[in-house]
Formats: sequence, C-alpha cells, structure tokens
Amino acid sequence: LSLAAPMSFTTALARRWQEADTRLCVGLDPDPARLPAALRGRADAPFAFCAAIVDATADLVCAFKPQIAFFSAQRAEDQLEDLIAHIHRAHPQVPVILDAKRGDIGSTAEHYAREAFERYAADAVTLSPYLGGDSLAPFLAYPGRGAFVLCRTSNPGGDDLQMLDAGGQRVFERIAHLAATRWNLNGELGLVVGATYPAELARVRAIAPQLPLLVPGVGAQGGDIQALLQAEASGAAQAEPGARRGAVVINSSRAILYAGGGEDYAAAARAAAQRTRDEIRHCQVGRPPAT
Amino acid sequence: LSLAAPMSFTTALARRWQEADTRLCVGLDPDPARLPAALRGRADAPFAFCAAIVDATADLVCAFKPQIAFFSAQRAEDQLEDLIAHIHRAHPQVPVILDAKRGDIGSTAEHYAREAFERYAADAVTLSPYLGGDSLAPFLAYPGRGAFVLCRTSNPGGDDLQMLDAGGQRVFERIAHLAATRWNLNGELGLVVGATYPAELARVRAIAPQLPLLVPGVGAQGGDIQALLQAEASGAAQAEPGARRGAVVINSSRAILYAGGGEDYAAAARAAAQRTRDEIRHCQVGRPPAT
Repeated sequence: LSLAAPMSFTTALARRWQEADTRLCVGLDPDPARLPAALRGRADAPFAFCAAIVDATADLVCAFKPQIAFFSAQRAEDQLEDLIAHIHRAHPQVPVILDAKRGDIGSTAEHYAREAFERYAADAVTLSPYLGGDSLAPFLAYPGRGAFVLCRTSNPGGDDLQMLDAGGQRVFERIAHLAATRWNLNGELGLVVGATYPAELARVRAIAPQLPLLVPGVGAQGGDIQALLQAEASGAAQAEPGARRGAVVINSSRAILYAGGGEDYAAAARAAAQRTRDEIRHCQVGRPPAT
Repeated sequence: LSLAAPMSFTTALARRWQEADTRLCVGLDPDPARLPAALRGRADAPFAFCAAIVDATADLVCAFKPQIAFFSAQRAEDQLEDLIAHIHRAHPQVPVILDAKRGDIGSTAEHYAREAFERYAADAVTLSPYLGGDSLAPFLAYPGRGAFVLCRTSNPGGDDLQMLDAGGQRVFERIAHLAATRWNLNGELGLVVGATYPAELARVRAIAPQLPLLVPGVGAQGGDIQALLQAEASGAAQAEPGARRGAVVINSSRAILYAGGGEDYAAAARAAAQRTRDEIRHCQVGRPPAT
C-alpha cells in the first residue's frame, strides 16, 4: 500500500486543470435500482457500471468521486477497491475523492484515515466538521492527501445547524474560516459547498480564497452552473487581491450516470459529461487557470 | 434480512435496565496493534477477539457498541456482520449500537441506513448532525430502530463548533433541542454526550429529559462516573417534573477490551466490566428505573 501520493492532491488538481481544462467531477453512486437492465443482478454490477462510466468520461473530468455508501450497502467494498485501483491504473492523471463524510476522534479517526488512504488509496476524502479540528488531523497527517470538510450543504435541512448565527458569523462561515487557518495542517484542506446556495458560496470563497471547493448540487439537484461560478468569482474578488485562488471542483452524479437507461449508458454518460464540462467552460470565460 | 426490530430500541434498553440493572455499554474496537498475542495475525482476529469479549461480558451490559472503522480499516466488514449476528443469536436481550457517525443526504443517507439496519442488523446507529434533520430521516424511517446524534463530544476539538454561542444558546444545546423535538420522527432518537463535560451533560439532560443518552469517555478517556451521573440527575431535576426520563448508556471501550494483555483477556475484560457496572450502580443509588 502506498502511503504518499506521487504528487499532492491540490497539485494534481491544478495540473489536471492546466492539461484538460475541466472542472467537472463525476460522482460514482451505483444505485442498484437505477442500473441498466443488462447489469442488474450481476454480482460485479457496481464495479462494471462505474468502470464503464469512468472509461467513457475520464478525459472530460478533473476528478472522480465514488460515494462509499452505495458500495457498503451492497457488501461491495472489494469492488470499490477495484474501481479506485482501475482509475489509478487507467487514468493516473485523474485524482479520486472518496465521498465518505467521516468524522470521529482519536484512534477511531486514525482507522477511518487508514480506510480511506491505505485500503482505498483515495487521493482525498470528504469529512464532517462537527467534532472539530482534532478529528481532521489524522487524515491530514498523510502528506499530500486531501480532505474536503462539509461547510454549506445543498439540502434543505442544512439550515438547521449551518445557518445558525454565532456572534455575527454563521456556523458555515466559521467552518470556512477554521478550514482556511487553524485546521489546515497539511495545506490540502478544502470545503464542500452546495451549488444550490450561490450567495453562501460567494461568502465561503471570500473567507477562504485559497481552498479548493467541492461543489455538489448541479444536475439532478438543480444547481445553476453560471450562478455558482459568478458567485465564486465575486467571492474571490472580495478576498485579498493577489491571493492564490483554489480550484473549484463541480460534481455531478445522477445526471451523468443515469443519462441513458439502456445499453448505451456509457455513451449517454459521456455526452452528458461533455455538455456539463462545456457549460462550465462557457461560464468561466475570463478566469485565469488555478495555480 | 429483518427490517423491523422485534421491539423498539428504547423499549429494549428499558427492559434490559429492568432485567439486568446495568447501564454499562461495552464498545467493541478491535485494534490490531492491541490484540492479545495469540490472536495477532489470525485472519479472523477481529471477530474472535470481540466475540470472546461479548460472551464474557454480556450479562453485565445494557448494550454493545461495535465501532465500524476498526473493521473497515482491516477489510473485515464480514466479521462485523458475523459479530452482530452472534450477539443477536447468543444474547438476544442485548441491543447493538453500530458506532458509524454517518451523515449524508437524500438517497445516500438511505444507503447508509440500509448498511446499518439491513446489512449489519444493528438496533441503533450513531449519526452526525451537521447536515440537519433531513439527513437523519432515512434512518428514523425504520420503525423501532434507534439513532444517537452527536451533541457534545468528549474530545478537546469538540469546542470548535459545538460551543459556539448561537443567539444565547450554544450549538450543542440547539442540537439537543432539535433532537428532542422536530428531528425525533420515530421517537427513537438519542444523543451522544461525552462524560468529560458533566456541566454540559446536565444542560443536555435539562433540554432533552426523555431522550436516551449515549455517554462515551469513561475509562481510558478519564470521565468520572459519579460526576456524570450527578450531572444527569441535576439536569433531569431542572426539566419538567414528571417527565419520562430517558435511559443513560455509559460506554467504555479500551479500559475493558484491553484490561488484560495476555491469554486471560476475556476474564480480565469481564472483571473490568463488572467493576465499572458496579461503580455505576453504586453512584446511581436513589434513581428510579427508566421507563
């Protein structure tokens, strides 16, 4: 098992941006109820489906994001291992973000970090911030590995906690501040900010101009690509001039995975991914490449 | 796979209290670096170790709490399934709390709920509150299954978010209030409150007198049993008189699992569990049984 990525996660993201000019991330959520008929019932369906999507879209994406719950609910952890190994082997230039939203303390967090980075060999992982900085540290102890902390999520219930006013600053703003400063132990921390709240995305970018942002919520969840990119740019404009600007990784899962329901699912996914990548390119005219 | 527990989780906890007069929960965290020498290197070590602990302590506990990270980091999900099946078969009166601290939205949360309740057949699960009420709902859609939401945790970094003042109420108090009201869709929701902060445990109990509390942090983490039980009682005294009072489940993991380092590990664990159960009994004199 390799403990250190060949280059750091944020470096790999920036290089991918320069080489392929894409901010699209394809989420790999193999839902057994939505698989093409030809794959249903096959024991290797999660791997076979996702690997076909990966191979059909790899040149269009800056990252892949497998969602671990879809594998765990099906007793298919071995297929998730195989899938990530396949991405590293066949598409080594595309980093893998394991969407696991882990969050625990001490030795338990160390075991979750081992799961993500040693067992699955992910380049980055998503984490929950509720337990604070020391729950993130065991992940950031892996040099060069990345982590995206939940900040402002795309679901309605996200308001319950994230929008609380904590002394003139909302909780998600406080999380963004902590992630940009004290929590960012290895310089590889990023934030998850839903596409469905552009005004709040702008706030996060103003607070944390240098952090990579993972933005779910376009496609099936209805987030607007132009609105989110404008918000990101306006937030960055409020930050210190000349500040290095972190990458933006725009995730779409279902709208790409299930674009076609039949035998042509991989070709349909490729077409949907290409449309989404191109829409992002079209909306981001004038933005300089991330460094 | 059985979808409904034979009785609800909170009922099972209350019955266990009446029958066995114990609030002790033994956490099952099989750390490969701390296993007895005779088990090290054995492929079935996580199951063999935990099953021996379970059989040695079952009559002393109100619940078992396996920690999923310790199994996942070792590719031992099948052994976690076998372990929980063993508890249900050999000790059907003892409910199982799967410590997973999941938290995600929509269809992803549904898959995590399937993992916890269908694949692993847990009676309850631990969850993170950061994503709000709709991230808990897919778990509470299982009738009779329980969930403990992180509220005030026992680690130093817990302050980062949980202690923020949100309009005169700290974030953990807000979580306790939500869990006691709007979030509690199936009446089976509880809260995780660390033993290391008795004053805050008292606040949580005052806000949520009826909710079961899962209290980690005694034993290796140094929480004081007498202080936590006094805090719980003083919090309950501030609540509405006559309010039904939820169970208190006091978890100890390492101090019991690794009480003996040699061949006698199960007997040493039993002795440590008995001491802890008895200390809890001694400190709780005068408290009426939970209903």
